Amino acid sequence: MPATETVAAVDIGGTKTAAALVTRDGEVVARLEAPTPGGDGATAILQTAADLVLRLRAGSAAPTVHALGVGSAGVLDAATGFVLGATDVLRGWAGTDLRGSLASATGLPTAVVNDVHAHAIGEARRGVARGARTVLFVGVGTGVGGAFVIDGAALAGAHSAAGHLGHQPSPYAGKLACSCGGAGHLEAIAAGPTLQAEYERRFGTTVSDLRAIAAMASDGQRLAIDTLAFGGAAVGSAIGGLVNVLDPHVVVVGGGVSNVGEVWWDALRAAVRREALPSLASVPVQATALGPDAALVGAAEIAWETVE
Amino acid sequence: MPATETVAAVDIGGTKTAAALVTRDGEVVARLEAPTPGGDGATAILQTAADLVLRLRAGSAAPTVHALGVGSAGVLDAATGFVLGATDVLRGWAGTDLRGSLASATGLPTAVVNDVHAHAIGEARRGVARGARTVLFVGVGTGVGGAFVIDGAALAGAHSAAGHLGHQPSPYAGKLACSCGGAGHLEAIAAGPTLQAEYERRFGTTVSDLRAIAAMASDGQRLAIDTLAFGGAAVGSAIGGLVNVLDPHVVVVGGGVSNVGEVWWDALRAAVRREALPSLASVPVQATALGPDAALVGAAEIAWETVE
Repeated sequence: MPATETVAAVDIGGTKTAAALVTRDGEVVARLEAPTPGGDGATAILQTAADLVLRLRAGSAAPTVHALGVGSAGVLDAATGFVLGATDVLRGWAGTDLRGSLASATGLPTAVVNDVHAHAIGEARRGVARGARTVLFVGVGTGVGGAFVIDGAALAGAHSAAGHLGHQPSPYAGKLACSCGGAGHLEAIAAGPTLQAEYERRFGTTVSDLRAIAAMASDGQRLAIDTLAFGGAAVGSAIGGLVNVLDPHVVVVGGGVSNVGEVWWDALRAAVRREALPSLASVPVQATALGPDAALVGAAEIAWETVE
Repeated sequence: MPATETVAAVDIGGTKTAAALVTRDGEVVARLEAPTPGGDGATAILQTAADLVLRLRAGSAAPTVHALGVGSAGVLDAATGFVLGATDVLRGWAGTDLRGSLASATGLPTAVVNDVHAHAIGEARRGVARGARTVLFVGVGTGVGGAFVIDGAALAGAHSAAGHLGHQPSPYAGKLACSCGGAGHLEAIAAGPTLQAEYERRFGTTVSDLRAIAAMASDGQRLAIDTLAFGGAAVGSAIGGLVNVLDPHVVVVGGGVSNVGEVWWDALRAAVRREALPSLASVPVQATALGPDAALVGAAEIAWETVE
């Protein structure tokens, strides 16, 4: 039996780092993960990622590993392989030579991409949007981000910063302060923590997390249902506006908040239809299909490009 | 002296149809225009356009005319050359075989493109954004439209409907009804007629047009100044949000409303900087450079593509 031809993929997030060996067809054949030592600085983060890749190579039944694809939080410059910007969750990450460091630690040709872009590429090439020429991906989690994928490639932008669609003005956000320093942006109302805060403002109490609100909504609590619907409508309204600008073939929505239940999805889809022009209102709006492996699959796709 | 090598370009708008002969370098060497017989139906509109082209060919000093590029109001399918949709300003325009009809009337290889996309292509290839890899074009006139231009080509979208950026939710628009049947969209507050209506609501009186408001603003009338600034800020806010999504190399703003004065521009640019992420706030925001010929120059570019 011939050895499986693979690339290695790494997904460096704020809390955990995942790594996998992935075939040319996008199949994950081995997988490991470890906590991201985000507070310990770039060297520790890089070491964790490199160790996972080396363990995967050592542990598997002698596969051929051709290259490494790295998805990472932060603004990444695909041309130079450097991290241009990152939040404090990854301390000292900005300025890191991500590609150079991991290429020399692993000996593999390496390509890098933002983790949300990697997720979008995974879904566009191997997931729910497979075959669609253009895909608008929206990730709603701790923040709200996304990517516009054209022919399988995520639009990078002039400063490698495209896809920050949480930072659009939203009529749902009023004057709420946003993580970017601005105000009234979608992320200030529709991300996990900010939607939780909206519930807490409405109810005058605190809850542990958005999951708790989802559970109360399942039990029929009106304010929980209304809050989740409000968050879904805020996201859907922004998506509808972008559908009118980009006319994508498919919209894909993922991220942790997308698991809060049908009340959120129903409000999201209704808002898309309400905002979109009549001729565009039937754009497919899909949930992600690849789950937690999506960014790994997308990063692997980028890695295969260095081989071909 | 050799004959000038040209293509013909036509720009079919709601009120007038312009035609030109354009060189490979984007220089307009001859130009004619006529009122668009918009109420008389597709045959009359096509006849007007074809006549202008035939007169240009007959009247010029025997140039070689290689092809025809047509920019037109409405949603155009570049692949089939048909008009997919249009407003009532061009009666019976939807369903017209625009490319086929003008190709057979003129005998020229013909390509078609939406007029706003043509304007954007003109500025991206031959105007103020020449050389920029990606351009966000925003046209503010009777409506609010635009285009996202990548490597000189306007993003068409899944239904040839990309660029409708007046139909994004805008916090400035409240619940105002929009021309699309929706509400709260940018076009409902920031287009020429809707911004005029905003002034009239604020002042409780009527004015002839936006130019009258611009004149009053020049004379220092506070409410006129505030209204124009409000309109500029609404456009700039939407642009800032799109800058965060698309990270364009350059933003170009045109259309009749862009001539109302510096108070509008100052508010627009301030709003872009306020909404855009810190790393993107310095994106260049330029006025159009090609003026009324921009769509002709863009349509000519599309025509040259059929020759090469």
